[in-house]
Amino acid sequence: MKSVAIGIDIGGTNTKYGLADENGNILASSSLPTRKEDDFPAYILHLYEAIESLRKSLDEEVHIKGIGIGAPNANYYTGTIEDAPNLIWEGELHIVEEFNKYYDAPVIVTNDANAAAMGELIYGGAKEMKNFIMITLGTGVGSGFIVNGDLVYGHDGFAGELGHVITEWGGRPCTCGRNGCLETYGAARGVIITVMEELAGSHETCELRSLSREEITPKAVFEAAEKGDKIALRTFERTGQYLGRALSNMVNIFSPEAIFLFGGVARAGKYLLEPIEKHMNANVLSIFKDKVKLIRSKLPESDAAILGASSLVWKEFGTPEREVAD
Amino acid sequence: MKSVAIGIDIGGTNTKYGLADENGNILASSSLPTRKEDDFPAYILHLYEAIESLRKSLDEEVHIKGIGIGAPNANYYTGTIEDAPNLIWEGELHIVEEFNKYYDAPVIVTNDANAAAMGELIYGGAKEMKNFIMITLGTGVGSGFIVNGDLVYGHDGFAGELGHVITEWGGRPCTCGRNGCLETYGAARGVIITVMEELAGSHETCELRSLSREEITPKAVFEAAEKGDKIALRTFERTGQYLGRALSNMVNIFSPEAIFLFGGVARAGKYLLEPIEKHMNANVLSIFKDKVKLIRSKLPESDAAILGASSLVWKEFGTPEREVAD
Repeated sequence: MKSVAIGIDIGGTNTKYGLADENGNILASSSLPTRKEDDFPAYILHLYEAIESLRKSLDEEVHIKGIGIGAPNANYYTGTIEDAPNLIWEGELHIVEEFNKYYDAPVIVTNDANAAAMGELIYGGAKEMKNFIMITLGTGVGSGFIVNGDLVYGHDGFAGELGHVITEWGGRPCTCGRNGCLETYGAARGVIITVMEELAGSHETCELRSLSREEITPKAVFEAAEKGDKIALRTFERTGQYLGRALSNMVNIFSPEAIFLFGGVARAGKYLLEPIEKHMNANVLSIFKDKVKLIRSKLPESDAAILGASSLVWKEFGTPEREVAD
Repeated sequence: MKSVAIGIDIGGTNTKYGLADENGNILASSSLPTRKEDDFPAYILHLYEAIESLRKSLDEEVHIKGIGIGAPNANYYTGTIEDAPNLIWEGELHIVEEFNKYYDAPVIVTNDANAAAMGELIYGGAKEMKNFIMITLGTGVGSGFIVNGDLVYGHDGFAGELGHVITEWGGRPCTCGRNGCLETYGAARGVIITVMEELAGSHETCELRSLSREEITPKAVFEAAEKGDKIALRTFERTGQYLGRALSNMVNIFSPEAIFLFGGVARAGKYLLEPIEKHMNANVLSIFKDKVKLIRSKLPESDAAILGASSLVWKEFGTPEREVAD
């Protein structure tokens, strides 16, 4: 009987789930609205029923090797989700315990950026690597750090908060209550603030001037950059400088083989990647200069969340040969 | 026959060496001038002869389990010292290869801050810990990161350069050629620059005004602080702010159980530790607030270098039970 891992990605709006084999083939996948149930145990029951129905739709019977879950504020050690601001359920959610009601297989949970890092290690561009960093650039900045072939969870399971590393003391206010966090400069939130600053600070003609604050998106800035708009280009240059500087400090600490970029903002391609790379190499110690690869994630974007979540299972319960890269 | 590890600490001026058992007892130790020989292989031969003479001075015969070496710019993976600015020999020094000429036992080399971190793990205050950070505050700032019970060497062996993380963009010039590195603010070098700035920026009476730039040391600033000197106290407050901020970012990334401080500047005690702790907790994400212990190293300062170096051997070749803390 074929072994599969269930991969689940819980977002504020949708929950994606699928069945993946050890080689990263997704046998089946689907999604449901995360906000469907007010009660967390009822949501898990609903999700369980949806997964089982997906499993029954397969041509063959499969053995469930384990369940991997990527979720905001999820803690690997405790098996809980704690005070996730964009989920409707408050407090401590015992997600592993809930799944244990329905499955005998092991259940592993971590945050989405850690799951993405593990996906890159098991299925993606980092198969042969032992030390790398995954950066997810979406609304905010997420990060997962792989050291000696394993995820850095830290003492309490909440390690890897690069988005909340302060890069500008006394800088832009962050939703976390502090000032100057990288994610107020580096991801979608940062791009939008930077372009507003640029629009406020110059008289140059720019098609973005006709958009309201709510209409400005990284995609709109990207499209303007494609037409050579100077304000859009300067916005990406500055965003790349903020990210490149922050990454240069991470290189000095971790000496990674590569840094992977994933997510919506990374789609800005050369407009963002080139400045990131330039400013990273301009600020690292000379021993690291031009040595760390900056790579867009090799995971297919549509399946990445499910692959990342399912990779948690293969990392811990997959064939042992996987362990002996390098 | 008793098993011992040879621990060697190579500094710019002196080389300390000793024989330590698995419990951190130093059976014998001594030192010799590092600059005695112009030729690196001749220096190693000289060191070997000195170690053998020390070994023969013991009351009992011992079995050499391995040789651990802490040295500036030393690389664990390659077994070399590369372009260490404060050693007289230039280029790549094959130190492991040289020791292999004289000993069959394994030889392990890493930089001095990593050796200090390992010493804390094996013999010191971190015996029960899996995730912690060691900060050495001497002339510069050194660091060693323990993640999942192992040292972070990174892809190329040069991870852990906290002293060269840029904390102030465009800040003070550093000997590395860049600007704003933590060690221009945080260690002896930083304390001296900060006190000069404070003396330049005020008219307050201060006993440090009678000292030349060359006479000002962290010890002199400490002695002034003991007498309530405002400039000295502000200097430590600011130094603690720089260090505390940098450490807050490291907490967000590593989520360590504790941060250990070691070295000359750490002797400033409460004048420095209190501001570090205050500014660290003021700048971490709320989930880490007041949760990370800031502790002075538990290794006896006089023996720490030899203990750190010898601990490298026990970590890799000691009794397996040591591995199962926590």
